[in-house]
Amino acid sequence: MTIVMNRQALAAFLRRDFGQVADEITVQEVTEQGALVRLAVSGRHLRPGGTVSGPAIFALADVGIYLAILSRIGPQALAVTTSASVDFLRKPAAGADLLADVRILKLGRRLAVCDALIRSDGQAAPVARAAMTYAIPPENGVK
Amino acid sequence: MTIVMNRQALAAFLRRDFGQVADEITVQEVTEQGALVRLAVSGRHLRPGGTVSGPAIFALADVGIYLAILSRIGPQALAVTTSASVDFLRKPAAGADLLADVRILKLGRRLAVCDALIRSDGQAAPVARAAMTYAIPPENGVK
Amino acid sequence: MTIVMNRQALAAFLRRDFGQVADEITVQEVTEQGALVRLAVSGRHLRPGGTVSGPAIFALADVGIYLAILSRIGPQALAVTTSASVDFLRKPAAGADLLADVRILKLGRRLAVCDALIRSDGQAAPVARAAMTYAIPPENGVK
Amino acid sequence: MTIVMNRQALAAFLRRDFGQVADEITVQEVTEQGALVRLAVSGRHLRPGGTVSGPAIFALADVGIYLAILSRIGPQALAVTTSASVDFLRKPAAGADLLADVRILKLGRRLAVCDALIRSDGQAAPVARAAMTYAIPPENGVK
Repeated sequence: MTIVMNRQALAAFLRRDFGQVADEITVQEVTEQGALVRLAVSGRHLRPGGTVSGPAIFALADVGIYLAILSRIGPQALAVTTSASVDFLRKPAAGADLLADVRILKLGRRLAVCDALIRSDGQAAPVARAAMTYAIPPENGVK
Repeated sequence: MTIVMNRQALAAFLRRDFGQVADEITVQEVTEQGALVRLAVSGRHLRPGGTVSGPAIFALADVGIYLAILSRIGPQALAVTTSASVDFLRKPAAGADLLADVRILKLGRRLAVCDALIRSDGQAAPVARAAMTYAIPPENGVK
Repeated sequence: MTIVMNRQALAAFLRRDFGQVADEITVQEVTEQGALVRLAVSGRHLRPGGTVSGPAIFALADVGIYLAILSRIGPQALAVTTSASVDFLRKPAAGADLLADVRILKLGRRLAVCDALIRSDGQAAPVARAAMTYAIPPENGVK
Repeated sequence: MTIVMNRQALAAFLRRDFGQVADEITVQEVTEQGALVRLAVSGRHLRPGGTVSGPAIFALADVGIYLAILSRIGPQALAVTTSASVDFLRKPAAGADLLADVRILKLGRRLAVCDALIRSDGQAAPVARAAMTYAIPPENGVK
């Protein structure tokens, strides 16, 4: 799986096409297996008790997996999530960003399947795991 | 499964404890099987192309299932999602709200399992299906 | 979704192409939403304590959903499961068959998504819920 | 997570309590993260075309995750699967055993969450990924 978009190219793509998420989600590193992606946690992600909300964790996994796929297939604003499963494992650490470590498990012509382990920055124990499938538009899939 | 919170009680709970979501999510009806819950779709839920984002659909399922459970066990701000699976089936209709029809499949002392079919208001074909498990704090579970 | 294979046609297909499962799984009814499918529970499906094993419940959901799809698209031995999620809700009743009530949620050209509620014969409360996605071979998909 | 049952102890437990699966599933290694578990593939696991069936892959993940948990909490015949998600990624290699590499993601007093990557013996690309939650009987959970 050759890398066709690096960290800077992914950031530029996100800023242009997904301005609303580019303020809070950044690619730390395009990795051998996928990508490491950060959510800058702020008040709008929190639920009562100071926990990061389920939808915010879902959004990090969703965008992180999307960016890992794009790092291998290039800019595809039309790739869409077709399914997702998430287990919420532990309460995130208070005041810490979240990091999603994404692995690409399959990159086919029409479907890409990835998983992600999500941790609070500085902690070893995972906060959540997620797996998602993305459909890739036919004209642009990997051959 | 006796109903212990009606539509008005759920709305009051949501407004008090989850002010940020009370503006966009409302219980249409507490049903025999669970609850019917509406997301007032606005610009902040949209992705490029006008589609409602995956995280917004996830949030509707998550909050809708939470409210269906509360309608049977009473106000429990501490109940938390432990797992979720979602299939995204079709592009939502442009400019329409989303409705989640939640069924309670199991309401145990410690875990509640529900599923939801999500449709665009006025359409029959589902936009997404979701299933989620909630952990109920020990002191407050159904006996 | 026109029905193109009825109960008898599905049974004949199963016996010819899946002899090993045709002895224990039968279509009770092709329904408006999908199909109702029975697993004749026997000793080989049981785990210690007399519970039907998880893999046996998975197999019922998998074959039941496959048959529901075939009832609409015709005999496709090559359709394959691409993803599955299952929640195990209650211990099945001792000595009772299991029934899977399958709903077709999406029947596209390339992917079909279904869910199933599984009950012990004669009981109302579900034993399990499952959702699965099947990939349909390109040449044979619904137009 | 201290290891309390090694490879031999797990094999003895499986043979005594799950005779039907002990003939085909064996623990290769108790690993730092969980366990590596082998399915000896035979005719009874195959579907038309020579593919290992979905239920056989599910069973390997289910038993493999169960054994990984037991390696840390000791013999618990009553631990039960409460939920599972599986993505089927590639056709297994013909005539090869399957190996499940299980990671324990959370080992709580009441719930254990694990995932597994499943490969054909001798191949790098995964055949499937699975995540499962097990409920642990209250009297025996990890403190």
